[in-house]
Amino acid sequence: MPSSPIRKLAKYADDAKRNGIKVYHLNIGQPDIQTPQCALDAVKSLDRSILEYSPSQGYKSLRTKLVSYYAEYGIDLSPDEIIITSGGSEAVQFAYMACLNPGDEIIVTDPSYANYMAFAISAGAVVKSVKTSIDDGFRLPPVEEFEKQITPKTKAILICNPNNPTGYLYTKNEMDQIRDIVKKHDLYLFSDEVYREFIYTKRPYISACHLEGIEQNVILIDSVSKRYSECGIRVGALITKNREVRNAVMKFCQARLSPPLVGQVIAEASLSTPQEYMDAVYDEYLDRRNYLINELNKIDGVFSPTPMGAFYTMVRLPVDDAEKFCQWCLTDFSYEGQTIMMAPGTGFYTNPSDGRDQVRMAYVLNKEDLGRAMIVLRKALEEYNSQA
Amino acid sequence: MPSSPIRKLAKYADDAKRNGIKVYHLNIGQPDIQTPQCALDAVKSLDRSILEYSPSQGYKSLRTKLVSYYAEYGIDLSPDEIIITSGGSEAVQFAYMACLNPGDEIIVTDPSYANYMAFAISAGAVVKSVKTSIDDGFRLPPVEEFEKQITPKTKAILICNPNNPTGYLYTKNEMDQIRDIVKKHDLYLFSDEVYREFIYTKRPYISACHLEGIEQNVILIDSVSKRYSECGIRVGALITKNREVRNAVMKFCQARLSPPLVGQVIAEASLSTPQEYMDAVYDEYLDRRNYLINELNKIDGVFSPTPMGAFYTMVRLPVDDAEKFCQWCLTDFSYEGQTIMMAPGTGFYTNPSDGRDQVRMAYVLNKEDLGRAMIVLRKALEEYNSQA
Repeated sequence: MPSSPIRKLAKYADDAKRNGIKVYHLNIGQPDIQTPQCALDAVKSLDRSILEYSPSQGYKSLRTKLVSYYAEYGIDLSPDEIIITSGGSEAVQFAYMACLNPGDEIIVTDPSYANYMAFAISAGAVVKSVKTSIDDGFRLPPVEEFEKQITPKTKAILICNPNNPTGYLYTKNEMDQIRDIVKKHDLYLFSDEVYREFIYTKRPYISACHLEGIEQNVILIDSVSKRYSECGIRVGALITKNREVRNAVMKFCQARLSPPLVGQVIAEASLSTPQEYMDAVYDEYLDRRNYLINELNKIDGVFSPTPMGAFYTMVRLPVDDAEKFCQWCLTDFSYEGQTIMMAPGTGFYTNPSDGRDQVRMAYVLNKEDLGRAMIVLRKALEEYNSQA
Repeated sequence: MPSSPIRKLAKYADDAKRNGIKVYHLNIGQPDIQTPQCALDAVKSLDRSILEYSPSQGYKSLRTKLVSYYAEYGIDLSPDEIIITSGGSEAVQFAYMACLNPGDEIIVTDPSYANYMAFAISAGAVVKSVKTSIDDGFRLPPVEEFEKQITPKTKAILICNPNNPTGYLYTKNEMDQIRDIVKKHDLYLFSDEVYREFIYTKRPYISACHLEGIEQNVILIDSVSKRYSECGIRVGALITKNREVRNAVMKFCQARLSPPLVGQVIAEASLSTPQEYMDAVYDEYLDRRNYLINELNKIDGVFSPTPMGAFYTMVRLPVDDAEKFCQWCLTDFSYEGQTIMMAPGTGFYTNPSDGRDQVRMAYVLNKEDLGRAMIVLRKALEEYNSQA
């Protein structure tokens, strides 16, 4: 499994902190938002005397409650069609392991969340990509670009919607286009939709599960991590109407015995989070997004499209090699005792020569810190480019 | 990944229960013992407002406390040498993924815990086996039997000590023998020692970590699940002094982001479990073992060696096909509204034609229930064999 550039930077960030420098972490998807009180209360009131294995598929009570949750999004499921996993990461892994054989090909959009590619490589699959561009906000390219990548070995397309790292939200037309390709070539469609609560446009959310005629092809990847700011509990889900896929996935589930017990209790309680909490979190992210994108685009040579969802954006910087710049910010630069850590763009592209002038930023810091981080970024770019 | 025979039986057990039959579960390793109070208290007093990602390697406080735990067993470690995993299962998987390439061979003792083989197959490795026999209590065969299995593709030996499913505890001589082979052929030694608290003989516990001269070869697999009766929290560990292996494992750890947060808090608290609890649990298992083995060997044609550790035993039954018999117990038999579920022996052997007349029993039921289960077993064998 290849090392992503971000891992190399982590130790420089540690060094900077050891030297007393305040590092603003724009690089990670760990929200600073408080977990809902009902989730925290569920931990405190856990009433069990044996912390035993839970069922390999996850507790039925949790799966039943999830059915109601999805129904609100117009996704019609039964508890049997939901398999609880140890985070969304395990759901991606199990989807790959159940559906892909070594040598099979999977198509992702470029840029993509780095671990999609890492898990694919680990499953022995070959990753092909369809390029999207920062200049048109990372919208899907014409269907012909997908067709070009399809070979007899193509088994699946993976999308993330709303997208990490770009924040892009697929339109109805784009989703229909994906449906048509999936149907024509009888592919699996892995759809990671963990950010569906965070959509900042009036454009409707089209789930892969809304697409007619490919019900047996769709595997939905989900997680409560981001939705309720509880990334640490490791509870996700793999959802599919395809019984054969579920049976294959269940073998991997049984081998790893069970998903985390306490996490499932927390996740189940979280599904009763009051709407006021969800609204407040939504407003907070929206406010941060508007602020961050505005501030970014005010800096000379910096460009970020306006992400429509999630809490990330891909940003073009006026540097040749953003990875070098990210490292330099941690090792050779500080402004008033502060610096920033960003995720180099190359880590999100299948071809490492792409995205060299890009970084991913997550707006999981409060606005005040985001403001300070933007001042630091501006100063850093000035100093970096004056040296060159 | 192949289906183990036990999975097919699970639905028959559900059917039996639905028909009002009480099923004694001798088939699973889920202890009925209460989790230590300090562990349960740790859940209730969890004081966090964001349930965030924990470090991919696991919390340093937990790893530091584990260092003291291992020191009591004469195993000298630093926190850096410990990687926290999502249960012992993930530790096995990561050990395989980090150390084995597709086509590489791994030697296990036969019988073995079924998931060792499932994970190996899933990693593309080839499982070779060294047979042990119920007739001599499953002790290790002479070193020549290992040598016979070694080829240029052999990369590792896996042992479980005390053993699941046999309860066997390796002697000093046997461990030295394994050390010599590992050293001679420069193999990895994966050693699963999750049952070290449950050793019922005066014979000393020899950890793979006690073996001199192969410090860089040993990968210790561990878990708090059985020790503190908290299988559901999914906290295990992969431990090795080999930095290269740790670096490779950490890449998989980073891809799956983090082990469960609340589980780690519970595991850390569990390490302060009072000795009285450990002693009481030990006495309970010892008492059950003595009772079960005695009762088993009183039944005509039934034979179980006396397991020296863990809480399992492999039992020979006077039937041709124990898998059929196990199924029959669930589908066609009951005695006073009760029946038993056992794990067919074939699931623990690399060659499914071995162990056909064996079952694995776990003594995780209280003595009263074990007694009832033995009455049911005796009646079941009588009825089954009178029909044949």
